[in-house]
Amino acid sequence: MLRFHHPDALRVWRASLDRSRRVAVVPTMGYLHAGHVTLLEEARRRVPPEQGEVVLTIFVNPTQFGPNEDLDRYPRDLEGDLRKAGAAGVDAVFVPEHPDVMYPARWTWVTVDALSRGLCGASRPDHFRGVCTILCKLWNLIQPDIAVFGEKDYQQLAIVRRMHADLFLSGEVVSMPIVREADGLAMSSRNARLDPAQRSAAVAVPRFLAEVSRRFAAGERAREALLAGADAALHPGRIDYVELVDAASLAPVDLVSAPALVALAVHFGDVRLIDNTVLVPPVAGAPQSV
Amino acid sequence: MLRFHHPDALRVWRASLDRSRRVAVVPTMGYLHAGHVTLLEEARRRVPPEQGEVVLTIFVNPTQFGPNEDLDRYPRDLEGDLRKAGAAGVDAVFVPEHPDVMYPARWTWVTVDALSRGLCGASRPDHFRGVCTILCKLWNLIQPDIAVFGEKDYQQLAIVRRMHADLFLSGEVVSMPIVREADGLAMSSRNARLDPAQRSAAVAVPRFLAEVSRRFAAGERAREALLAGADAALHPGRIDYVELVDAASLAPVDLVSAPALVALAVHFGDVRLIDNTVLVPPVAGAPQSV
Repeated sequence: MLRFHHPDALRVWRASLDRSRRVAVVPTMGYLHAGHVTLLEEARRRVPPEQGEVVLTIFVNPTQFGPNEDLDRYPRDLEGDLRKAGAAGVDAVFVPEHPDVMYPARWTWVTVDALSRGLCGASRPDHFRGVCTILCKLWNLIQPDIAVFGEKDYQQLAIVRRMHADLFLSGEVVSMPIVREADGLAMSSRNARLDPAQRSAAVAVPRFLAEVSRRFAAGERAREALLAGADAALHPGRIDYVELVDAASLAPVDLVSAPALVALAVHFGDVRLIDNTVLVPPVAGAPQSV
Repeated sequence: MLRFHHPDALRVWRASLDRSRRVAVVPTMGYLHAGHVTLLEEARRRVPPEQGEVVLTIFVNPTQFGPNEDLDRYPRDLEGDLRKAGAAGVDAVFVPEHPDVMYPARWTWVTVDALSRGLCGASRPDHFRGVCTILCKLWNLIQPDIAVFGEKDYQQLAIVRRMHADLFLSGEVVSMPIVREADGLAMSSRNARLDPAQRSAAVAVPRFLAEVSRRFAAGERAREALLAGADAALHPGRIDYVELVDAASLAPVDLVSAPALVALAVHFGDVRLIDNTVLVPPVAGAPQSV
């Protein structure tokens, strides 16, 4: 497994690959969990060793953290990450040696309007600017044929798809479903920062989403009724937002008539967790399951 | 000479080129003049036919025009442009068939802070956002080894160089000196929109810049003295700005001690012209010309 610590070295390697080789990239902030591993496995499945290279990037990107967020406390475990990457068949890992090598200046920014304003964007105003900017840099360096993202960061995925289309970035964006712990908690590097009491309490998040899905399956379509009781259900978690939005535009929805996203962010102590589920109305006239 | 009207077709062609071929691009808004031709010739010189392809892009990019600017009146002459491109040895011309093919959505933007605020950015607040965004799109589609720009748009060039480095865009940025008419007026597509009286008056612009350069050569270093008399000298032109800034940072300069840029924008009727000159202090201890 190759390791690159400077963008110039990564770029030289990329340019040296035979034209027939395809490249799949999985951009991460490291501290890999089973969710990341499904992304690496999907990358490997789509680009098998005889066809090309799978690149993992590990970079705790400072510009997507707000001034009072957990940049310094974000969990890191490079040795563990490299072990997992090796087991998943990764060919090359890019770990920038210092944030400055990715940010020769902090002057150039990539933003995606509209999609970045609500949900996580409301309480993390520069977050998606940081995400888009670092992804654009990585995209230009790696020129991937495939870039794989997780659906836990649903809003990020929608923004990345928009940016990808608008800027004519290379290749194809692929997403993979949320991977959950046995009790339903969505895998997240930040779960490692929960103390045992917080970890127990956090199961309220997937339980609440499951309850919303049950209400929807039972025929409920109204926002108020679907999201009712969130405060109590998520206690003692401190809600940042619980939202129902159109799954494509991310605009708020009052009555679900097209695929809709239930998304939430909840703090347990100083750990902020996000999760989501998509509600898909049955197609009119299509056979219904009983 | 190949012609492409849709980004998909351009991308397919780019991907079909042999890996050994180099690509030089000259991004323009068309209505080519002798200044543009020097850019095409430089592109061709650096990438001769046996080594690769020269691509000219012609697109009057709507997002770099403000609401009260001259988007609709911007001069166009596709037939003339294609003739000049052919004469300069261009291999491929990209003329998007409609602005929408370059902007599937107008949500994703590329900005460069700091450098975009002063000079033209002060009176054209979204101008450089539009420039950077379209250039980023073109860069991703064309993946040039060389991109050639004119130095008349000095601030644009500084911003493009910053964006190029920050986003790890492909290849190298090359610039070419301003080309002037016999009377000194900088070549510009917008000159075609001057009436005869305005055209005569506009020569005041290069004359004023020449006067500033003379003052500098005579030892003057103070901003006030260098720029003195601009209002009278440029009359009846209506000054947008006349500025003295550091040639690298574009920050205002009171006393020239490093290369400095004199830049200005002046309206003649509803035609806004820009021009500039660089003042380079002699290196201490170096032999002086007499």
